[in-house]
Amino acid sequence: VGIGDDGAVVKADTNEQTILVTDTMVAGVHFPERTAPQDLGYKLLAVNLSDLAAMGATPNWFLLNLVIPDADENWLEEFSTGLFSLAEEFGVELIGGDTARGPLCLSATVGGHVKSGTALMRNGAQAGDQLWVSGTLGDAAIGLDLVGGVLGANDHDMDYLVGRLNRPIPRIELGLSLSAVATACVDISDGLLADLGHILRESGALGAIVDVSCLPLSPQAIAVCGESLARQKALAGGDDYEICFTASPAQQPQIEQLRDQCNVKLTCIGSVRALSGIALTGTDNQDLTGIKSGYRHNWP
Amino acid sequence: VGIGDDGAVVKADTNEQTILVTDTMVAGVHFPERTAPQDLGYKLLAVNLSDLAAMGATPNWFLLNLVIPDADENWLEEFSTGLFSLAEEFGVELIGGDTARGPLCLSATVGGHVKSGTALMRNGAQAGDQLWVSGTLGDAAIGLDLVGGVLGANDHDMDYLVGRLNRPIPRIELGLSLSAVATACVDISDGLLADLGHILRESGALGAIVDVSCLPLSPQAIAVCGESLARQKALAGGDDYEICFTASPAQQPQIEQLRDQCNVKLTCIGSVRALSGIALTGTDNQDLTGIKSGYRHNWP
Repeated sequence: VGIGDDGAVVKADTNEQTILVTDTMVAGVHFPERTAPQDLGYKLLAVNLSDLAAMGATPNWFLLNLVIPDADENWLEEFSTGLFSLAEEFGVELIGGDTARGPLCLSATVGGHVKSGTALMRNGAQAGDQLWVSGTLGDAAIGLDLVGGVLGANDHDMDYLVGRLNRPIPRIELGLSLSAVATACVDISDGLLADLGHILRESGALGAIVDVSCLPLSPQAIAVCGESLARQKALAGGDDYEICFTASPAQQPQIEQLRDQCNVKLTCIGSVRALSGIALTGTDNQDLTGIKSGYRHNWP
Repeated sequence: VGIGDDGAVVKADTNEQTILVTDTMVAGVHFPERTAPQDLGYKLLAVNLSDLAAMGATPNWFLLNLVIPDADENWLEEFSTGLFSLAEEFGVELIGGDTARGPLCLSATVGGHVKSGTALMRNGAQAGDQLWVSGTLGDAAIGLDLVGGVLGANDHDMDYLVGRLNRPIPRIELGLSLSAVATACVDISDGLLADLGHILRESGALGAIVDVSCLPLSPQAIAVCGESLARQKALAGGDDYEICFTASPAQQPQIEQLRDQCNVKLTCIGSVRALSGIALTGTDNQDLTGIKSGYRHNWP
């Protein structure tokens, strides 16, 4: 069915389950007002693909709901450029949507699939599991501070860190590989502590020990704000869209192979335990004075 | 999968196709700012169910993307009351979504299903087909004028017409029954002329003759603004969410049975022809002076 019809028709295979994710981005809330339209197009799809990655799903199609102040053709063209560059990279097809005039507000709904019963959930963590994260953490939050002029950096570090904010890489291949080894998985959109909290809560009021000295930091993050602030950003900064997962220690060799296979850094940062709450080790408390309880742009 | 996970999991049956529809409503664009939250909740789901009805689909689940200025619990509770009253009536389940703070902007994505190959499309109309509409037309546009103080009415007519604006009835049962008899179908959201135009264009640059004297008008519409203005509203007013469909004249007996079966008025208002454009008969031109070319709140 073309985009012209009232709805879109999709067909799922018999032994597959459809996974649906949806995310909204509002100007001034989820991104600075002057973010380039290309970056908005890219990021709107990327944050949804990241949700699919965290469920171990393969993306297939998406719907758009765009509310835009003016029917500005340049804006739409640039937005589309960013959007479709990523859509093509991951082979996802636009199958429908809705556009309206109003205050800038962008939603995408993405459909993917898993082999029946293989979806990665948040609720499978076990006491004794290792705690892993992909990539480096805190970069996007530092990038946001750079865009807002709260921090300064040389052009090279600026490009890298703002790029991490505006162009997160959906960890689709990693998510697919993790289906066989992880017990629980989430993408880090609100900050490590907040999103790890989701896994622990939904796995039955478990807790975790996080070794702050093990947090993966980029050289650029450390160069711009020093190790102590970079660690705070890694713990509580949002928008990284890296993957946080738990797995039995017996899986460590398989997980270390995934690093090369998926070409993404994977770091063990701690472990899950029965005692609830998140305990931070490998740090003096001095490091943590600036930490707020997660990056909340969503409610309730 | 609960709402807490990154995504929702759905499973389709083998011989079914999933139909996806999505619609956004923006304050001040798609509804007056002071519309009651109950009505917004109802209407957000209703307009999406109407799209499914026009495709002959059975609704199953929905996702919400809510952008709301304040975390106002009363607002959310009232919105939910309206939303779930309709969700329960049609047996559709909320399976996920996203809430954020920002200028009031509400999207819903609804999934439904059809038996494979039975979806009603816009592109199947044939020259010689009869043209049918459900219910009465123009009521919602008159309701909007009443809300805006452009027209006045007694309480009884006001309640009826504003109710037609705020609480459109999704014609799900009718849509299901039409799968076997209609050649093309659309729901009337932007006005009869605009939405009939979609059918005609997508069926291959066909045209139609509409007998204006046959347009179904409610007694309330005529009481409030007289027959001539009521006809203009029926032709060009939006938000009625009635169904417009085409069918072979041979199907007329079956269609007349559907009136009773689905408890909805069905009126033949003209026919499809090869000559493109929409010709209006049964009227002097005087009637039509106020008609704009459809009710456009969507673009491009």
